[in-house]
Amino acid sequence: MQKPSLPKGTRDFGPEQMARRNHIFDKIKTTFQKYGFQPLETPSMENLSVLTGKYGDEGDQLLFKILNSGEFLKKTSVSDYESGEKVVLPKIAEKGLRYDLTVPFARYVVMNRHSVNLPFKRYQIQPVWRADRPQKGRYREFYQCDADVVGTDSLICEAEIIMMMTEVFSKLGLDSYEIKINNRKLLSALAELTGTKEKESDLLVAIDKLDKIGMEKVLEELKSKGFSDDSLEKILPVLQLSGSNDDKILTLEKLFESSESGKRGVEELKEIFEILRITNTPSDKVVLDLTLARGLSYYTGAIFEVKPLNVKMGSISGGGRYDDLTGVFGMPDLSGVGFSFGVDRIYDVMEELDLFPDEGLKTIDVMVAHFDQESLKYGLGVLAQLRRNGISAEIYPDLAKPKKQFSYANNKNIPNVIVIGSEEIKTGLLSLKNMKSGDQESLSIEQIIDRIK
Amino acid sequence: MQKPSLPKGTRDFGPEQMARRNHIFDKIKTTFQKYGFQPLETPSMENLSVLTGKYGDEGDQLLFKILNSGEFLKKTSVSDYESGEKVVLPKIAEKGLRYDLTVPFARYVVMNRHSVNLPFKRYQIQPVWRADRPQKGRYREFYQCDADVVGTDSLICEAEIIMMMTEVFSKLGLDSYEIKINNRKLLSALAELTGTKEKESDLLVAIDKLDKIGMEKVLEELKSKGFSDDSLEKILPVLQLSGSNDDKILTLEKLFESSESGKRGVEELKEIFEILRITNTPSDKVVLDLTLARGLSYYTGAIFEVKPLNVKMGSISGGGRYDDLTGVFGMPDLSGVGFSFGVDRIYDVMEELDLFPDEGLKTIDVMVAHFDQESLKYGLGVLAQLRRNGISAEIYPDLAKPKKQFSYANNKNIPNVIVIGSEEIKTGLLSLKNMKSGDQESLSIEQIIDRIK
Repeated sequence: MQKPSLPKGTRDFGPEQMARRNHIFDKIKTTFQKYGFQPLETPSMENLSVLTGKYGDEGDQLLFKILNSGEFLKKTSVSDYESGEKVVLPKIAEKGLRYDLTVPFARYVVMNRHSVNLPFKRYQIQPVWRADRPQKGRYREFYQCDADVVGTDSLICEAEIIMMMTEVFSKLGLDSYEIKINNRKLLSALAELTGTKEKESDLLVAIDKLDKIGMEKVLEELKSKGFSDDSLEKILPVLQLSGSNDDKILTLEKLFESSESGKRGVEELKEIFEILRITNTPSDKVVLDLTLARGLSYYTGAIFEVKPLNVKMGSISGGGRYDDLTGVFGMPDLSGVGFSFGVDRIYDVMEELDLFPDEGLKTIDVMVAHFDQESLKYGLGVLAQLRRNGISAEIYPDLAKPKKQFSYANNKNIPNVIVIGSEEIKTGLLSLKNMKSGDQESLSIEQIIDRIK
Repeated sequence: MQKPSLPKGTRDFGPEQMARRNHIFDKIKTTFQKYGFQPLETPSMENLSVLTGKYGDEGDQLLFKILNSGEFLKKTSVSDYESGEKVVLPKIAEKGLRYDLTVPFARYVVMNRHSVNLPFKRYQIQPVWRADRPQKGRYREFYQCDADVVGTDSLICEAEIIMMMTEVFSKLGLDSYEIKINNRKLLSALAELTGTKEKESDLLVAIDKLDKIGMEKVLEELKSKGFSDDSLEKILPVLQLSGSNDDKILTLEKLFESSESGKRGVEELKEIFEILRITNTPSDKVVLDLTLARGLSYYTGAIFEVKPLNVKMGSISGGGRYDDLTGVFGMPDLSGVGFSFGVDRIYDVMEELDLFPDEGLKTIDVMVAHFDQESLKYGLGVLAQLRRNGISAEIYPDLAKPKKQFSYANNKNIPNVIVIGSEEIKTGLLSLKNMKSGDQESLSIEQIIDRIK
């Protein structure tokens, strides 16, 4: 007899959490669909040849590998064993659990290159796995919610990312946040400006730490990487740019007037804001932030990140434009733009701000309670009538004291209970109890159906 | 440069398949919810201590094991290595992928025994993994859709399983099927009747093969297991029982009048049919079938199975009553009843019978097409207006020939295309093209919104 437990870093989601999580997933899904994105699902396991080398050395370490089934040692020898994990691994494991949704998406596009309808707008909401050290807010299994468009350079896609972010958070009642936007081309231009184009990635890495370590330490790091005082003097004002987005754009326009990359970056930003204007998208939460780097050298154009205000929490959504999704699988030059929502963090923010609607999360409209065998039978007919009218309903299935039945309904957050006794059977008027207010009324079944619908 | 591939036995689900699969999942989910079931999700990986020994030796073989991360060999020695897989396995893998949803459910109930609201009605729709040899219709990753009630013996739950099966298949437009019902207690009584109670499991195993090998071979097998000719003569008429359900019940009532188990089995059946009658549930598809055994000696009461007629296909739904879900985890005597839908098979049946609705599967209502930069910009305003009215819409994001834009809409099964040119901008009357009929009309944006909604 064993006491069962969960693998560390994993979670069960019981009914209440599921209702809350589904509330978030639903808003995300309906928004993706409203913008023309179609669902895709890929297998949980991928061949390690597909996954390995896509996430850096650290990522490779964090892949969960699946042991080959059957005689998994058959391809190995004692000398392999003595050489250690690196030699043994490829001989005993050919598959791994997906680490993100981007690589499987790229694989899908390449494998279906002849049938995929470009520009291809797909969304994908599935769990991913990482053998990370579990800690608060970091799990070994968690959902990603990605939407990407590939096969077009149109900046409409960038603007629509802002629209979708705005729509999802508005539907969730989350209104205190910032959508930061930047453009990789501006960061390149910044590196050019300092005459250290070859050190662009050092610049990116340092800027990316700004939030965590502050400006002073960033400048120190840049100095240690060989940036001159002179070049730092050029960087600092750009990183400290203030004013409205329009002000910032004007400043950048002048600053980068002789940089090809800078000019294009500014142009792209201007067009994105223009599309937001044409479509009447509120852009008051959009903040042009030259310090947004998002680590990934992967991005080539716009970069996005959403941070909640008033809550201590990392980004709850982010993304950007990339030039080459599928090159690593032999299909070069497929450009795209994508973003994702961090559901676990959104959940935590909503919980902290008490944004989950009570009403929206109930799953069952009504329970039928009874006193004895006769009222139970009568209740079954009532139940059937409720369900026939599209009402979600259940009957307490056993003979039990009213208190027990009510406490069951209460624990399950069922808002209405119909109580049936001999009096109710005689008159045909049923007692409908509102579980929140405690009010009780005598109503016909038709009236109850109207009321609940 | 590698050509990517999928692990064998796994599948991608592209947009069209997803729309069809979601159509099925949606009907199942809304039905589960309508009957008071609440969602549960458990992690993909479980500790092997939870999974091992629950599915028989064969099942243990079919578990996908996850290699411990990091230095997975550190607990092993050369002598372990030389002893082979059995010794090495527990030292290099502590986790496995879930094999079904029942064991994780049992684990969840036990771990949450103090907070679970009994009777607990949960549904769970998640993938499971089995290292089976892949073949037509058998995958290594596939979804299970389970609903279970634990903590009550009420036969209302059994009747509601029949109601839910009926409701789901009716919503899917699948009307040619049989819901077979049996009761394990009747099979026990049958074994008693032949005086071979101790051979009950031999009887179950043999009967279970009836569909595949036919009556003659079943009788042969029973003979070889030591059933006498005399006892076979008693079994045969029961397995060949014909007539209406009521006729069969009458026959069984007489046959088993001196068997405790038989009498209870008949009583249970009668009560289930009585509940169906009270709730006006059509029972014309319900067939009492004494040859239904469903392999699992796990079941203790009612047993269910749904088979489509007119299509060569195994069961598409099934389940039954069990007495002891959680005993193996140290929480005895928790009785329950559950069933599941086989989504992959339902998908195949619906495809074969052409039951997927075209209309219900479209995900995007309308696409905006354009001729030049000006009409593209104008189209963005139209697009925003559509979406503000809750219509799912997209604009072709690049300047492209009309033919290309239409072919995109066509491939994506978008039913309406709004075409915008200079004339449309001038008059404010937009061309709405019905992609199915080819009809084109000039309408104001308000008219279009009304039309599409």
